[in-house]
Amino acid sequence: MKCDQCGGVAVIGMPQHRLHLCAEHFLAWVPRMVERTIRRYQMFTHDECVLVAVSGGKDSLSLWEILIELGYQTEGLYINLGIAHEDYSDVSQRHVEAFAARHGGLPLRIVDVRREYGRGIPDLGKTGRGRRMCSACGLVKRHIMNRVAREGGYAAIATGHNLDDEAAVLLQNTLHWQGSYLRRQAPVLPASHPGLARKVKPLCHLYERETAAYALVKEISFVELECPYSVRATTIFYKELLNRLERHSRGAKQQFYLSFLKAREEGLFAPEPESAPELGECRACGQPTTAGELCAFCRLWQAMEEHDD
Amino acid sequence: MKCDQCGGVAVIGMPQHRLHLCAEHFLAWVPRMVERTIRRYQMFTHDECVLVAVSGGKDSLSLWEILIELGYQTEGLYINLGIAHEDYSDVSQRHVEAFAARHGGLPLRIVDVRREYGRGIPDLGKTGRGRRMCSACGLVKRHIMNRVAREGGYAAIATGHNLDDEAAVLLQNTLHWQGSYLRRQAPVLPASHPGLARKVKPLCHLYERETAAYALVKEISFVELECPYSVRATTIFYKELLNRLERHSRGAKQQFYLSFLKAREEGLFAPEPESAPELGECRACGQPTTAGELCAFCRLWQAMEEHDD
Repeated sequence: MKCDQCGGVAVIGMPQHRLHLCAEHFLAWVPRMVERTIRRYQMFTHDECVLVAVSGGKDSLSLWEILIELGYQTEGLYINLGIAHEDYSDVSQRHVEAFAARHGGLPLRIVDVRREYGRGIPDLGKTGRGRRMCSACGLVKRHIMNRVAREGGYAAIATGHNLDDEAAVLLQNTLHWQGSYLRRQAPVLPASHPGLARKVKPLCHLYERETAAYALVKEISFVELECPYSVRATTIFYKELLNRLERHSRGAKQQFYLSFLKAREEGLFAPEPESAPELGECRACGQPTTAGELCAFCRLWQAMEEHDD
Repeated sequence: MKCDQCGGVAVIGMPQHRLHLCAEHFLAWVPRMVERTIRRYQMFTHDECVLVAVSGGKDSLSLWEILIELGYQTEGLYINLGIAHEDYSDVSQRHVEAFAARHGGLPLRIVDVRREYGRGIPDLGKTGRGRRMCSACGLVKRHIMNRVAREGGYAAIATGHNLDDEAAVLLQNTLHWQGSYLRRQAPVLPASHPGLARKVKPLCHLYERETAAYALVKEISFVELECPYSVRATTIFYKELLNRLERHSRGAKQQFYLSFLKAREEGLFAPEPESAPELGECRACGQPTTAGELCAFCRLWQAMEEHDD
């Protein structure tokens, strides 16, 4: 397998792009793809400061690396979820800290959920409310990311979601025909309310195997443990289904995601039939929620407290 | 496994309905389900005559059997496609004729494509136009079904498509986000033009394993050969993907299809951005097509003639 650009030994083939690249040209190609994605969806500019949500995994650290290389102003955010199994959260944190240190001390904010809120993610499983761990954890992370982005005045929060992540969520939403999610899922979630931060996904055009290959070739040291709670996650099943599809028909995963974005842009979906209720402030934390009520994050915390009593 | 209705030995479990039934109660349940589907989508009434498109397979013969049992006025239509491999078309025809004879000589129309049009389906492969065999064959069948239904003045053409068929097509349309297909795919295709017959799919709420079980328990003699051209059909791959999904999450296949119909009914999709061109008559055969042109069927036949020259 030869590099299509220099004829050297290719380290990766990307059939959906009909492209084979050597290490050097692959490391140059990935940031170009990301830059194109950032511009295509008008995610942010070089004059703005972006908060990069990093988990210590290959995707988010690759994202941070690429944004730095592209000359964007970035700060990191690591949320320590308090997952003690195999020291998952602390090991992940050390990878993030080492990354920031290796780049000459990048600005990095760390939110320790257990220290700041008194409880960690594992406690969520004890409330017996049946809310799935992963969805509760997602809620907690969104809440904290939004709080930090809002307090720090960042132009956007960038997350490391790749095309496989986005396609898996899209498949899930499609299999249930969840209109409100289908209307919203996008590379950019606009700040639709003054209290909500803008969210962007600059890796959304890259396959997971490409972000993985980038991290390896670039010798980024990332946490290789999987979150102990994610093992049975439905998302993993959907990713496998999509990979099966990809093996049957090269590029099918990319086509599924990109043709969705295109069809929606061209007006496939009718506007939401009922307009969303006016947002106000959560009476406990002040984050946007239905006016006068507790936000989902504060309700979750309240449920844990009631469970303890 | 016990029958939920009589406690006898169940012959089938249908997890998506949380239902186990013995042979007797299953044979009673299937027509009830079909009757409910016919009424739910207002497919046709007992005062109307329905043309049942039969291939000799388990689905279409079961459909005919059920419609007779439910007391509907039916006539059969068998299209002999001229597929000689393993005598596929002739064997299928004999199954259909035997079925009609066994029911006291049901009215049955037979269209022999090779005899009436001079060429069979296998000749389609020779034009080298790259049109896939299955899609060309579908075109031919739709053309003939429409012609016969129109000449005979039937209220509707009923086909044996089951939920697996419909879900597979839906998955295909969804993976490519083909808006015009997503807006149209339905248990009833209305006669949107005077020259177009109404089409209905009374088995669309039944899983393929249920129509197969019905045919077996009811001892319907059907052709067990698969069409020699369908072996590598993409539809089969999508059916396998959906069965994998079903094994992971019982009822997922049904939910995918039914929640699609519901979401669309509730206005998920915006109207087609451009209205379809006004239909006129094909200048060769008179069937509906863009005014003044040849319809796709006649163009296909023309291509075969040009190829022979």
